[in-house]
Amino acid sequence: MRVSILSDSNESFIPLWYMAHNTFGSLLSLTSFGESHGPAIGGVLDGFPPGFRPDMAMMQRQLSRRASGRLPFSSARKEEDKLEFLSGLFEGKTTGAPLAFLIRNQDARPEDYDHLKEAYRPGHADLTYTLKYGHRDHRGGGRASARETATWVVAGSLAQQWLQDKGVQILAWVSSIGCVMLPPHYAPASMEEVMASSLAIPHPETEKKALEMLNKLASEGDSTGGVISGRISGSPAGIGEPVFDKFHASLGKALLSINAAKGVEFGEGFAASRMKGSEHNDPLMPSPAKQSPEFGSNHAGGLLGGITTGQDILFRLAFKPVSSIQMRQETSSTSGKPRQIDIAGRHDICVVHRAVPIVEALSALVTADFLLRYNAYQGFQD
Amino acid sequence: MRVSILSDSNESFIPLWYMAHNTFGSLLSLTSFGESHGPAIGGVLDGFPPGFRPDMAMMQRQLSRRASGRLPFSSARKEEDKLEFLSGLFEGKTTGAPLAFLIRNQDARPEDYDHLKEAYRPGHADLTYTLKYGHRDHRGGGRASARETATWVVAGSLAQQWLQDKGVQILAWVSSIGCVMLPPHYAPASMEEVMASSLAIPHPETEKKALEMLNKLASEGDSTGGVISGRISGSPAGIGEPVFDKFHASLGKALLSINAAKGVEFGEGFAASRMKGSEHNDPLMPSPAKQSPEFGSNHAGGLLGGITTGQDILFRLAFKPVSSIQMRQETSSTSGKPRQIDIAGRHDICVVHRAVPIVEALSALVTADFLLRYNAYQGFQD
Amino acid sequence: MRVSILSDSNESFIPLWYMAHNTFGSLLSLTSFGESHGPAIGGVLDGFPPGFRPDMAMMQRQLSRRASGRLPFSSARKEEDKLEFLSGLFEGKTTGAPLAFLIRNQDARPEDYDHLKEAYRPGHADLTYTLKYGHRDHRGGGRASARETATWVVAGSLAQQWLQDKGVQILAWVSSIGCVMLPPHYAPASMEEVMASSLAIPHPETEKKALEMLNKLASEGDSTGGVISGRISGSPAGIGEPVFDKFHASLGKALLSINAAKGVEFGEGFAASRMKGSEHNDPLMPSPAKQSPEFGSNHAGGLLGGITTGQDILFRLAFKPVSSIQMRQETSSTSGKPRQIDIAGRHDICVVHRAVPIVEALSALVTADFLLRYNAYQGFQD
Amino acid sequence: MRVSILSDSNESFIPLWYMAHNTFGSLLSLTSFGESHGPAIGGVLDGFPPGFRPDMAMMQRQLSRRASGRLPFSSARKEEDKLEFLSGLFEGKTTGAPLAFLIRNQDARPEDYDHLKEAYRPGHADLTYTLKYGHRDHRGGGRASARETATWVVAGSLAQQWLQDKGVQILAWVSSIGCVMLPPHYAPASMEEVMASSLAIPHPETEKKALEMLNKLASEGDSTGGVISGRISGSPAGIGEPVFDKFHASLGKALLSINAAKGVEFGEGFAASRMKGSEHNDPLMPSPAKQSPEFGSNHAGGLLGGITTGQDILFRLAFKPVSSIQMRQETSSTSGKPRQIDIAGRHDICVVHRAVPIVEALSALVTADFLLRYNAYQGFQD
Repeated sequence: MRVSILSDSNESFIPLWYMAHNTFGSLLSLTSFGESHGPAIGGVLDGFPPGFRPDMAMMQRQLSRRASGRLPFSSARKEEDKLEFLSGLFEGKTTGAPLAFLIRNQDARPEDYDHLKEAYRPGHADLTYTLKYGHRDHRGGGRASARETATWVVAGSLAQQWLQDKGVQILAWVSSIGCVMLPPHYAPASMEEVMASSLAIPHPETEKKALEMLNKLASEGDSTGGVISGRISGSPAGIGEPVFDKFHASLGKALLSINAAKGVEFGEGFAASRMKGSEHNDPLMPSPAKQSPEFGSNHAGGLLGGITTGQDILFRLAFKPVSSIQMRQETSSTSGKPRQIDIAGRHDICVVHRAVPIVEALSALVTADFLLRYNAYQGFQD
Repeated sequence: MRVSILSDSNESFIPLWYMAHNTFGSLLSLTSFGESHGPAIGGVLDGFPPGFRPDMAMMQRQLSRRASGRLPFSSARKEEDKLEFLSGLFEGKTTGAPLAFLIRNQDARPEDYDHLKEAYRPGHADLTYTLKYGHRDHRGGGRASARETATWVVAGSLAQQWLQDKGVQILAWVSSIGCVMLPPHYAPASMEEVMASSLAIPHPETEKKALEMLNKLASEGDSTGGVISGRISGSPAGIGEPVFDKFHASLGKALLSINAAKGVEFGEGFAASRMKGSEHNDPLMPSPAKQSPEFGSNHAGGLLGGITTGQDILFRLAFKPVSSIQMRQETSSTSGKPRQIDIAGRHDICVVHRAVPIVEALSALVTADFLLRYNAYQGFQD
Repeated sequence: MRVSILSDSNESFIPLWYMAHNTFGSLLSLTSFGESHGPAIGGVLDGFPPGFRPDMAMMQRQLSRRASGRLPFSSARKEEDKLEFLSGLFEGKTTGAPLAFLIRNQDARPEDYDHLKEAYRPGHADLTYTLKYGHRDHRGGGRASARETATWVVAGSLAQQWLQDKGVQILAWVSSIGCVMLPPHYAPASMEEVMASSLAIPHPETEKKALEMLNKLASEGDSTGGVISGRISGSPAGIGEPVFDKFHASLGKALLSINAAKGVEFGEGFAASRMKGSEHNDPLMPSPAKQSPEFGSNHAGGLLGGITTGQDILFRLAFKPVSSIQMRQETSSTSGKPRQIDIAGRHDICVVHRAVPIVEALSALVTADFLLRYNAYQGFQD
Repeated sequence: MRVSILSDSNESFIPLWYMAHNTFGSLLSLTSFGESHGPAIGGVLDGFPPGFRPDMAMMQRQLSRRASGRLPFSSARKEEDKLEFLSGLFEGKTTGAPLAFLIRNQDARPEDYDHLKEAYRPGHADLTYTLKYGHRDHRGGGRASARETATWVVAGSLAQQWLQDKGVQILAWVSSIGCVMLPPHYAPASMEEVMASSLAIPHPETEKKALEMLNKLASEGDSTGGVISGRISGSPAGIGEPVFDKFHASLGKALLSINAAKGVEFGEGFAASRMKGSEHNDPLMPSPAKQSPEFGSNHAGGLLGGITTGQDILFRLAFKPVSSIQMRQETSSTSGKPRQIDIAGRHDICVVHRAVPIVEALSALVTADFLLRYNAYQGFQD
């Protein structure tokens, strides 16, 4: 390591991030920018099909689902997330040129974080940013802030709408918070069922238990994690590249990019490791009316050899508990002294339900990208 | 879908794969080629550092660990996997130019698969290849064959040795087969412990139980899956890009590219979703002798915000059970008729232990690539 | 071709561009967006080094050199090109995070182009856009407009200033307009000499002849092209990748991306094809005070095998004459009828001098990118 | 510069290249490997369409045109360039999987170069390789050797044949050697005319003059350069990306990657800079029988705004004279002493005619790649 991160003064404090790789995707790509406490965040979505009329209300709804402030236990930062498109739209339709958009930051209160200036917060990226970039932004995360994900939701919502137009539906929901879980294999029929719950849990009884548990955690100043389940329906068979760009490998990478995500699984996932082949294999059945066989079950989660089978693509994403808890914690000061830290400010007890539209957004970007790549190789096959 | 996959004749049988994306990695990249029943498989490793003297015996050992035929229950295909380097080496050292290598195929017996010609095997990629490419190679997988992973092991072993030289150790082992599991948080101290077990289970008692279970499955003609655990030790803090190329997201994608992998998790992984913040947060402690703080625990698996902390990087990868079981299965013929299928040929009951060197190889390629990328941005920071 | 471009009605007029590939560069990359008649143009510069304090006046000066309206014969569109940075700057310094910026469009007068609605302009991209995208934007170019190059100048000026800080100077000038040329091998000593000329010709006598020639062309309603020469001084030896990313090949591609560029050459360029080896070879001489030899001449233009020698890098870029002339031209209407066209509106007789800051910008982006890539491979060589 | 290249001993001689970026292309990509004096050279062509039956004789013919030894004045190295395909072919047809191929090196005589061990050759890349990689391979070039281009010819010939099948013809020829030039705008009708000439000059009178000139140079021990012209016929309109991946910019980069290339131009090229708009604009004419207009001339070289018009794409590529001349030259020894150097060994007086199949190969790879990319965006436009 070339950078000393310990100093008693803050004299040499220079924000040094030097990051690259802020672009994601292949034919359909998102380049994002912006810091949580800078003038604006935004993105450029390149390679989006022309002639599509985005539903701005639907986009705003996904942004609202992600935004702070919905639950009594949620972070109090209230931002309208007012979205402006700068290019790529003409008379309400996409032109095919890059879609640039921005959301100005309005409610940044960096002084909220002043008491954190000289100590690392356990479980936070401020330590690793310091280790990597020789600098720490104690004011709430900069590029590491979950605010970045608002740009993913904008771009992803466009992809999600376009996919819906092509018959591909993407839906995510909370399947567990802490130890409170949906009944096994329970899945909602529609987004309405998910939207009906303030916790994105499409099962009132489970939601009730989760709210009770969160209330208790709130009184303790503690936090929790959870699991989001996702389903991509209506995708054609044959999507995904068979060696290094398998569909689930690429989707897995995208989902693991979400803040606090610690694991991802497809189909039966980790449970598959405990099954027998005779239990896990999905039997094939001729389907007189269709060109391809049908399946008697979907343990594989709609994927064989990294390529979609045409069944529902099923996945689950695990989130660690929120790191910013309202309890005194032991840590190190930036100058290497033992320190006790009390994190005040606006923080969530649980963020899992707020990540639901982010999961949908990244799933949509990955699926739309693969659909375009699939198309690239169709034309010359006849 | 533009391709009809059902026909009563095989007249129009044309192998049509049209795949791209056979390159993996950024500064250090592997381009692989070859089919399981073609003349050879191989790869080109580009961007490998110059002046390094590879240990060919160590490379061969990793290939042997991956190769067939070690267990009584294992696939009987015996190939020497004789490796030839075509470029990038001079007097036993790497020159920095692309390292090209090949392994000729010797023991291909496509006639073993003739009885499978007209039926899809449940759980196999031959269906999705047909759906995607309008063709099926019934002879054992082509590019979808696990034989492809031999090239990953060659390239990965080079990276693994180079990392070892820089103080970074990569180790993987089997932590469960079916429902037989290592004691919680049990981890081997060295590769020798793993190598001592024919199942790569570094715990004799557990290994014994697993062998008994596998014997029973063998008699039933059934198969099983399992979990591989991995550890990267000695990596400097600060590796990983903070937004779209988080270290664990990229490692996760690589690992999910391994045949039969269905889930990946880091640190506490899915268990983290059931923990409280006060349990999961790793406390920080000043470390007088070092520049950066130390941690009181490692629930996070050595990663915060997608960037390494300097602790051990810990992950687990779940594999589904082997699809080729020795039991009669219901399926569809390629011409859309109900069919019962008996898969003979050479097949494993369990492949998890053979995937251990593959997991090490991909972990090494990803880690070495990120280490080079880390370096790219160091020079101008002082 | 799948799109019929001929129709008698304009009913089905839909702007369909569907372009991708709006990102340029490797470690240092620019993603640009915006149409000439949309709300704004802008870009995201990713991978720029942290801790650098940009000189905004210098950036504005380069924008002004590129902007319209300086010459009596120039296009009358007057825009301030007011630049706003949205991210990546903190207290006047770059942070290392992506630098996003935008310039709002103010002086768009699409009605100027109404008379062109139904006819293709000879020499213009509106025909090929129609052929490619099934649409034509008769209003002044959209993404094909030279207005796009303003974003290149912003990003390039940042790179140019950073390079200057590292001792690398980039300078371009006009070496010929039409048949009026600088004396052979004449080159300016500084940017001041170039700035002193309204035509960017650093030689008053030649500039005078060029102005006379342009006056005559203005009276005829005709236009002309020209040649820009460039020089990169102070670059270290060893920049450039030896096979597919040779320095001059990458620089050549960047320069050929400029609107109206039709040829590029390095060192003696096309003249080298007529020289003997004994004339062209640059003799090497030991240099007691330096680590590397010196050269007795620079016919090679500072490049051998695609890698910089440490000498000045010299190149020349040819521009075709402006296509929009004030003379009646024969063309086809969009509905396939013969048509005579008179192009009114705001048009330049000559754009070569305005392309000088664009040439500097792209040269700077390419050089800075290669310098970062060079650095990536230095750290592990000792 | 971090590497001292001057030392009186050769003790620390370590070949250190550390190059990356040996991959070229987007959807259709070539990864090449191999050194001129190693075991083999070869490549992996990824993304090639399936179901195509390559004409191996045609491929061998292109390799022979490139190979040494055809002219009395040519380098005497005689290699059969025996080509072996390792993957991607089945029963004589491409499968769509990566096509890997190799050519073993047979006639390497590194001792021919021993007298050059301690001195830099003027005009050669051995100096810049030393400056970049801290090493020099005096034995004939390693990766910098023109032998590398044999792999380009193999891959390019596949692309060229596939394009021919789609109606796209690629043809290159020598239009000047030294000051001996074809009559203005003279172009051959077919490859046969080019093949008929040992110098690839499709005009017997000009060829005769060129041979006389080369004979004279041979007697003087000097060398010369020349110009290759190229033409791509039958390409559909609409190929090329409009901003950073313009067709001619990408083709220009590919062509400038050829050893000794110093300039490239399209259409009228540098001459366009001296033309008036009224002379250069290609008039458009309605074409009753076709969907798109026709052109009255082709000064633009088949390209407007970086996108093909459907006309012939025309370009010219300038080569510097061969650097290895048979005359005594002044240089520096590797230890920094003045030195006179006599280059013996096998060297060409002129290489331009041998570069003709290389020009065709790279043109074909670029055109095929763009055709695939064009296709990627067609499917969703209706």
